[in-house]
Amino acid sequence: MQKYFISDLEFSSKILTNEVAFQIINVLRGKVKEQFLIGVSGKTYLAEITGIKNKEVEFEIISEKDGNFELPFFVSLFQGYPKADKLENIIKYGTQLGVYDFHPTLMKRSIFKLVENKKNNKLARFNKIAKEAAEQSFRDIVPEVMDIKDLKKIDFSMYDVKLVCYEETAKAKQFTAFKQEVKKLKKGSKIAVVVGPEGGIEEEEIIHLEKQGFIKVGLGPRILRTETVVFYVMSAISYEWELEE
Amino acid sequence: MQKYFISDLEFSSKILTNEVAFQIINVLRGKVKEQFLIGVSGKTYLAEITGIKNKEVEFEIISEKDGNFELPFFVSLFQGYPKADKLENIIKYGTQLGVYDFHPTLMKRSIFKLVENKKNNKLARFNKIAKEAAEQSFRDIVPEVMDIKDLKKIDFSMYDVKLVCYEETAKAKQFTAFKQEVKKLKKGSKIAVVVGPEGGIEEEEIIHLEKQGFIKVGLGPRILRTETVVFYVMSAISYEWELEE
Repeated sequence: MQKYFISDLEFSSKILTNEVAFQIINVLRGKVKEQFLIGVSGKTYLAEITGIKNKEVEFEIISEKDGNFELPFFVSLFQGYPKADKLENIIKYGTQLGVYDFHPTLMKRSIFKLVENKKNNKLARFNKIAKEAAEQSFRDIVPEVMDIKDLKKIDFSMYDVKLVCYEETAKAKQFTAFKQEVKKLKKGSKIAVVVGPEGGIEEEEIIHLEKQGFIKVGLGPRILRTETVVFYVMSAISYEWELEE
Repeated sequence: MQKYFISDLEFSSKILTNEVAFQIINVLRGKVKEQFLIGVSGKTYLAEITGIKNKEVEFEIISEKDGNFELPFFVSLFQGYPKADKLENIIKYGTQLGVYDFHPTLMKRSIFKLVENKKNNKLARFNKIAKEAAEQSFRDIVPEVMDIKDLKKIDFSMYDVKLVCYEETAKAKQFTAFKQEVKKLKKGSKIAVVVGPEGGIEEEEIIHLEKQGFIKVGLGPRILRTETVVFYVMSAISYEWELEE
């Protein structure tokens, strides 16, 4: 069954307009009496189409559904801004794997040059990718893609657990810190994960992060590329906490 | 340091020709005395350039290096053939995450139509992607992308552990089987992992696989898309076995 995230206004009016209505009418060829899932304000409802007029879809709520598709933690990804369209894959797959929000981060070795007048378009596109991926993986929430910021200007004080994925830690075969930290997580923990861009993280940046309470973690003996790191982190957290023996 | 996989013949002659020589001469602007890593027959060596002539690079071996970048298991991915270029991302990221070999598999809901005269080009391209990803992640071996086969024609009898990732198992919130199987792995285990294409796996196919000893596994409450499944599987196995507490 298809899931759509809608606005509070659409929810209270019980009328869909814009994109979701277009999807239902033109793409899925939806008909009266057909059912779909609605995501709104972190809750999920089963809904039924009661009318299709012009470009609008009227619906009624049948029941509230158990959501419970979220990790019991909030993982915020501070991704060193990578080349080309890599960030799109990171957002798409990261959303499916449960990232709470994304923070595209300018770091010393980021090649990306921020062009102010293109930024809003880019962020709109990233947020659209996150929304679609959230619908497809039945997330309860849509992860937000936040503004692009410089690493040095970010305030990490709100996070309970701070991890920086560092290639040199992996190369030195120091493989204990990540698992120790994952096992210690508590329900509701806010976790900041910093991942470098293609060229890695400069030592000066590591020192800056360590001063703010970050722990360096190595993710096994194979050197991951920047896009793969978050897949590993999210899968491992899910494996540890969501799968049972 | 850059790593290159070379042939036995290049290794015994100590002369590089073709692609690797082109890379060293034209892309990296390599010079005599510069060092690089060589991967050959599952071993890794430190090598030094001793001469560059015409389009050839002469080298000598300095020392054998510890490899040990491989998982202690052999994970074979039987990936339901997906749409568009998704298989390229699966091969690239899957290689970085440690897949042993890839088996593009035609399943009931695969939309891909096999065009015989384009097949060899496609496989050559897939294998090139695997080789580049293996070099970048310092794998000891290059995962092979095998011929495209129909699910029903595959003989799975050589595998010690057989897992099929099944959406319905995840939806039913049965989250025990995967972790149980991962924890039971033994050094050298040959593991077959079957992943469906976009539309999922048909029940008839599941029955066929179960008859051959496959176990259905669910990978947590968020519904993964076909490309993400192998990321989860490989990351979880690495987390369980390669990271320490």
